[in-house]
Amino acid sequence: MSVVAARGFLASGVWSAIKGSGKPDLSLIVSERGASAAGVFTRNLFRAAPVLESVRRLAESGGRAQAFVAVSGNSNSLTGGAGIRDSLAVSRETARLLGIPLRHVLIASTGTMGRRLPVDRVKRGLKKAVKSLGSAPANGLAAARAIMTTDTVPKQSVAEFKAGSVTCHVGGCAKGVGMVSPSMATILVFLTTDAEIPAGPLRKSLQEAVAGTFNRITVDGQMSTNDTAFIMANGAAGAAPLSGTGLKGFKAALGGVCRELASGLVRDGEGASRTFRVMVMRARTATEADLAARAIADSALVKTMFYGRQPNWGRIAQALGACGAVFDPARVIVRVGGLVAIRGGMAVEPKFAMLTRLADPEVAVTIDLAAGRGNAEILTCDLTEKYIRINAGYLS
Amino acid sequence: MSVVAARGFLASGVWSAIKGSGKPDLSLIVSERGASAAGVFTRNLFRAAPVLESVRRLAESGGRAQAFVAVSGNSNSLTGGAGIRDSLAVSRETARLLGIPLRHVLIASTGTMGRRLPVDRVKRGLKKAVKSLGSAPANGLAAARAIMTTDTVPKQSVAEFKAGSVTCHVGGCAKGVGMVSPSMATILVFLTTDAEIPAGPLRKSLQEAVAGTFNRITVDGQMSTNDTAFIMANGAAGAAPLSGTGLKGFKAALGGVCRELASGLVRDGEGASRTFRVMVMRARTATEADLAARAIADSALVKTMFYGRQPNWGRIAQALGACGAVFDPARVIVRVGGLVAIRGGMAVEPKFAMLTRLADPEVAVTIDLAAGRGNAEILTCDLTEKYIRINAGYLS
Repeated sequence: MSVVAARGFLASGVWSAIKGSGKPDLSLIVSERGASAAGVFTRNLFRAAPVLESVRRLAESGGRAQAFVAVSGNSNSLTGGAGIRDSLAVSRETARLLGIPLRHVLIASTGTMGRRLPVDRVKRGLKKAVKSLGSAPANGLAAARAIMTTDTVPKQSVAEFKAGSVTCHVGGCAKGVGMVSPSMATILVFLTTDAEIPAGPLRKSLQEAVAGTFNRITVDGQMSTNDTAFIMANGAAGAAPLSGTGLKGFKAALGGVCRELASGLVRDGEGASRTFRVMVMRARTATEADLAARAIADSALVKTMFYGRQPNWGRIAQALGACGAVFDPARVIVRVGGLVAIRGGMAVEPKFAMLTRLADPEVAVTIDLAAGRGNAEILTCDLTEKYIRINAGYLS
Repeated sequence: MSVVAARGFLASGVWSAIKGSGKPDLSLIVSERGASAAGVFTRNLFRAAPVLESVRRLAESGGRAQAFVAVSGNSNSLTGGAGIRDSLAVSRETARLLGIPLRHVLIASTGTMGRRLPVDRVKRGLKKAVKSLGSAPANGLAAARAIMTTDTVPKQSVAEFKAGSVTCHVGGCAKGVGMVSPSMATILVFLTTDAEIPAGPLRKSLQEAVAGTFNRITVDGQMSTNDTAFIMANGAAGAAPLSGTGLKGFKAALGGVCRELASGLVRDGEGASRTFRVMVMRARTATEADLAARAIADSALVKTMFYGRQPNWGRIAQALGACGAVFDPARVIVRVGGLVAIRGGMAVEPKFAMLTRLADPEVAVTIDLAAGRGNAEILTCDLTEKYIRINAGYLS
């Protein structure tokens, strides 16, 4: 259950022959009625055509939409004016088949860069996708599968909350394996809710949720040109427009869904064998805490250390000492799996208990800089030979 | 020929049982007479004990030294006060055996972090090292070998220059394979010259040379806690103290030696199969050019692309667009191996000529941002499964 858990949403996922593998590559998520909508996009200067198009349409529609269409296997980035025309052609066909205005279609893509989209094949695929729309869990799963690239599992999540006496839902699916870095926007994320929420608060809620979840993860420190998170709120649950506690409930549910999806993205990071959560406390500022957490999370040496399950605490110190945050090395305390690893400028000889914690699927790295009141947290994965093999061979 | 190419320098490299492998792990470079000296050190906040010690001694001696002693296999970092005492004990024994003041001994280490130095073994090794000192090329090579860790080849370089009618020499050796990043200080580099140069100009010359060479390379974007470059100038060539054209000649020779050693470090980067040189032109500022060049050079996706010899130009755009430099994507021109790869916001379909250039041992990536007058250049290597295997298994 995911994007169709919220009432009044239909979904499908089909193969439109973009991927040579025959795996599904076209995803469609439709609200039965008009919905408020919001999006968060990559901050990469080389924004892909579908990103540019969706930004424009959200502005034109004043935050309304009725369909998300997503292509995987071809990111339609670095394709210039031709790419914009291709994105437009796919969006137009989607609007025509669904009988909705073009400005209510939001589009996203992921996959190989710098290649023209095979528009005719996508158009044929769209006919199949519209025909197979449905609200069964299998439909949500099909949509989640059809946005995958090197993802090994689909990522879905759902949460409930109360608006007055009415039970509302937030559902979502996401993809992202490589070229995944935080501080930016996200990956591909499609969210739905059957609550009624005006475009303004919806956008703000999405931004907050993304900032605390998708923007706090990294796989390889690389920001895609196509990162996109969309949400539609269609009010199909029949509750009054959200405000006050209702809105708070929605935000909590949305945050929960985004957090689960974001964790799923890291666990399925390209080649990842385990994840680790870096928590930096008492930096001079929140910005320095963020700098330190990202320096550790994106360090090739720390990542390979967790892959090899080795207590090379020096690598954490190395990344920390070079990150640009200001602190006194003698006052820093680093804990790995809850046990002290570095204190007083010295590495602590690893005990057996610590070595066993390195084998946990998620390892906590806690760093107290004793320099101020800034905190930050980043979730990331290790770096393995498989990441290299995938990226030395996969056209992304 | 290397550190002993300059007259009046002796060198040796022996095994002192720090490395279990039986490979040489103790390097000694001695000037027969007192010499001016200078050092450049890591900017990592967690500076290792030998770095702290050498900084102090250069200050105490006012830029004089007569010996470099280096230990490989144990970096004596994250070892607190005990580590300082260990470094001091090794330095004292070196001074005693050579009959020189402690403040004229400069010390460096590289290898596993967070472990106490086996001082007694090092002391026994020092006796052997002093006994085997000599000025034959084999002695220089032995010193270059004894600072290696995962290095697969020793790195040496030598250059000549004229001071008036006298031929002088600059010699050097270096090591560095992982935890190698620019913008910082360096790796381990030992340089000698038989010219006579006061400590002030010597320090300035070293800083300039390092800034243009070792600080322009990266293997994995990780700055070591032990990076050190030392130089001694002993005047043994018999020329007058350098100034004017003589000093210019020295700087050119020193720059050439540092450049050759720096290239050697990148070619021997952990697991590297080929190198690529990123040249960014016409950024808004030199700082933004540097930011862009480093973003590309340190991108796991660009590195694996070069490893896989794939024309995934999108990855270069991705790294460039996310780096923080400000430019108009439509005006950017990216060339790979001299051929246009991205222009007008579009990836150029790769031609056969370009694919063959990806197989070159060094590939040039030239980026014209058309945004200002800032330029920067970084030399780096690809990222391979071997890097992962080395770093998931090696205690560094």
